[in-house]
Amino acid sequence: MSDISSLFSAKSIAVIGASANPQKLGHLVLKNIIEGGFKGKIYPVNQKGGTVLGMSCYKSLKETGGVPDLIVVIVPNWAVPATLKEAGELGVRNAIIISGGFGEVGNNDLEEEIIDIAQQYSIRILGPNCQGLIYNPNSLCASWPLISANGGMAVISQSGTIGAEIGIRAQDEGLGVSGIVSLGNKTDINELDLIEFFANDPNTASIALYIEGLKDGKRFIDLARRMGSKKPLVILKPGRSEAGREAVASHTCSLSGKSEVFEGLCKQYGLLNAKSVTELYDLLKGLSCIQPAEMENVVIVTSSGGSGILAADECAEAGLNLVRLTSDTVKEIKEHVPEHCVIKNPIDLTGDATALMYENVISKAAKDPNVDTFLVIFGDPIPGVGEAMCRLKDQIKQKLIICFLGGGDVQVEETVVMHRSGIPVYPSPERAVNVIKRIVEHSKISQEV
Amino acid sequence: MSDISSLFSAKSIAVIGASANPQKLGHLVLKNIIEGGFKGKIYPVNQKGGTVLGMSCYKSLKETGGVPDLIVVIVPNWAVPATLKEAGELGVRNAIIISGGFGEVGNNDLEEEIIDIAQQYSIRILGPNCQGLIYNPNSLCASWPLISANGGMAVISQSGTIGAEIGIRAQDEGLGVSGIVSLGNKTDINELDLIEFFANDPNTASIALYIEGLKDGKRFIDLARRMGSKKPLVILKPGRSEAGREAVASHTCSLSGKSEVFEGLCKQYGLLNAKSVTELYDLLKGLSCIQPAEMENVVIVTSSGGSGILAADECAEAGLNLVRLTSDTVKEIKEHVPEHCVIKNPIDLTGDATALMYENVISKAAKDPNVDTFLVIFGDPIPGVGEAMCRLKDQIKQKLIICFLGGGDVQVEETVVMHRSGIPVYPSPERAVNVIKRIVEHSKISQEV
Repeated sequence: MSDISSLFSAKSIAVIGASANPQKLGHLVLKNIIEGGFKGKIYPVNQKGGTVLGMSCYKSLKETGGVPDLIVVIVPNWAVPATLKEAGELGVRNAIIISGGFGEVGNNDLEEEIIDIAQQYSIRILGPNCQGLIYNPNSLCASWPLISANGGMAVISQSGTIGAEIGIRAQDEGLGVSGIVSLGNKTDINELDLIEFFANDPNTASIALYIEGLKDGKRFIDLARRMGSKKPLVILKPGRSEAGREAVASHTCSLSGKSEVFEGLCKQYGLLNAKSVTELYDLLKGLSCIQPAEMENVVIVTSSGGSGILAADECAEAGLNLVRLTSDTVKEIKEHVPEHCVIKNPIDLTGDATALMYENVISKAAKDPNVDTFLVIFGDPIPGVGEAMCRLKDQIKQKLIICFLGGGDVQVEETVVMHRSGIPVYPSPERAVNVIKRIVEHSKISQEV
Repeated sequence: MSDISSLFSAKSIAVIGASANPQKLGHLVLKNIIEGGFKGKIYPVNQKGGTVLGMSCYKSLKETGGVPDLIVVIVPNWAVPATLKEAGELGVRNAIIISGGFGEVGNNDLEEEIIDIAQQYSIRILGPNCQGLIYNPNSLCASWPLISANGGMAVISQSGTIGAEIGIRAQDEGLGVSGIVSLGNKTDINELDLIEFFANDPNTASIALYIEGLKDGKRFIDLARRMGSKKPLVILKPGRSEAGREAVASHTCSLSGKSEVFEGLCKQYGLLNAKSVTELYDLLKGLSCIQPAEMENVVIVTSSGGSGILAADECAEAGLNLVRLTSDTVKEIKEHVPEHCVIKNPIDLTGDATALMYENVISKAAKDPNVDTFLVIFGDPIPGVGEAMCRLKDQIKQKLIICFLGGGDVQVEETVVMHRSGIPVYPSPERAVNVIKRIVEHSKISQEV
């Protein structure tokens, strides 16, 4: 079969089942392709003709007179085989089948039929029963919701919602995704193909995978190891409980296997697994910004005493080392801050801290060779901290991880500034510390493997 | 000493240290009092006179010709004693001292001096070194940031940032707070006075407390028990680690004591403790909506198979019981939903679920006497679910807890609708399940105590 990269680089798309009804996916997907800024040719196809979103529909694929690089199929399940056949005869090589009603509801014969047609005509298929594909380097949003913010994170998901949720969070926070791919029934393209694609994709810095069942565990581990050593791969695999495994069987007919086995494999082979959507996103974000490295020796710098204490507790429980500042460092910092600041670790600059104070203090403390990581907590609306951290990032060798809380509108604005420069920002101490902890653990395991 | 309720019900306020400089707290606090919609008389006082925010400043408190119910003091530390004395002589009975530079930086004599003056003139003092007070039933925001959304949650905090953060989250999510009080150095009014006030306050449904050190542990436990049985009280107390306890000593000179002791006391006396800001907010929100009750027997209803599985795992690990639906219930539900829906627990209505489908299915399942709680997961932008859940809430005896993800703008809008009707909404399965788990555990302990 052909390489799947042509799916991502398509220069022309037909939407088969384009609809004028805004409630229908055939409308929404066409709308998102247009509003996502796709630069190639778009062919809306509806057998009844008509106009959708100001575009005249073709009554069939043939009528378009072209051979689109990609078709997006949103027609009733019984109409999918004929659609695929027509496309195959025209020479189409990539299809995203959003339509459901196949193996997932027991229509195995219909699913076999489309597999056969695809093989006969060498069509690569994503789906059926999937939420489509987003690839922002090609301004391609053949999915929903519209996630058009481009960034370094890629998501491969057996759940449309979980892929969408990560995309929404990334977009809301001034980050973005390179791609989001919904796996659906995996009749052809599966997680392995996609991990391989994103691992080799220069637009992608880190990859998240939500997966319910692995068809080929050994091949998965082999590939995940090989690709994960190129590029961070974070995996969320549910089914930790009997109840979860039963639900997996109902959802995607997957056998999820015992979670202890999977967790053991992750540990053994240096794969990074997340326990929740929140952790999946937090790690994906952290690893899109930060190369896994020594991060164990931490200095906390805060304007909020309370938040600093919470972070200190979390660091201690995570096995991280709160570095003791040398007397020279303490002396030098004290020369640059008001007397009431507490120059220990956590360094508490108190409520009247400014962006400049943070910048000065961290650049002094960065001379300490024992420090790997600055956990910087902004506990008030402090304007200008975004730019200050961006300057620092280029000057110091340590990693910067930010926690921002209590900052209202200023927090939202400054977070975007930092995210755009690849500095990860978390909304609470425990989430920031957990990311440091997981990266440290992962670096250790990876070295051993 | 007088009751502290007059602090909250003040009908006239003087801001001493009002400033025309927008960078200064003396500006920000006056601005927030005005923009918060305070309906009483406001006297800006600045010894140099001048105009602030369009108001002429009085050069002294005496010059105002009135006796304000409350003064907010934002002057340099050395000027605080004279200010208090002048106020005391005029007959002022309540003071919020935002100015810092007292006991927290070793100026113990200055702190003693203001304590003496306050006692001499019977002035109740909040602070010094605090972030002020918000009380929305009186449209009073003598603090920052501006949190003017009124609601059932109260926050008492020894960290200004943590109080602010909870207020911001509540306001952003369409909820609100009755009050936020920053404790500061606790020279007079302390957490016990405030717990007592909010426990008796008809405008408050649940109380959060962030506290670093307890001066009188026994009195605290007695009161927290007594008040907590009236109204849910959630406590976040850092200092679980040695590093955390050292940081506590630097921040508020408190002795935080071993966390095991505190956690043991919580268990023994049925107090609810949180481990992080996120959990503090999640529990506070849940308990402002839901009376602690039987919640152990859960049915999950979802449009996102993946999110339902994650929730099932979390429920199993939390020791909650995923109720097995009776065959009658299954049969009745199946009559009202498309064939491809999975009617087990989790009930998976799949990606084309509508608000009406959710409403129908839950009202059928609610007839099952074994169900205590519906964990309802919306995994797409589904319009109208807010109103549907509000209707359901009035019809069924079970508790409703919502998880909403992957819903973009629709999610934001519908979340506000549900919050305004007292239905708690969480952004991920693990956070929703954790709230159910903690309320269940708490109900059991409370019954035993």
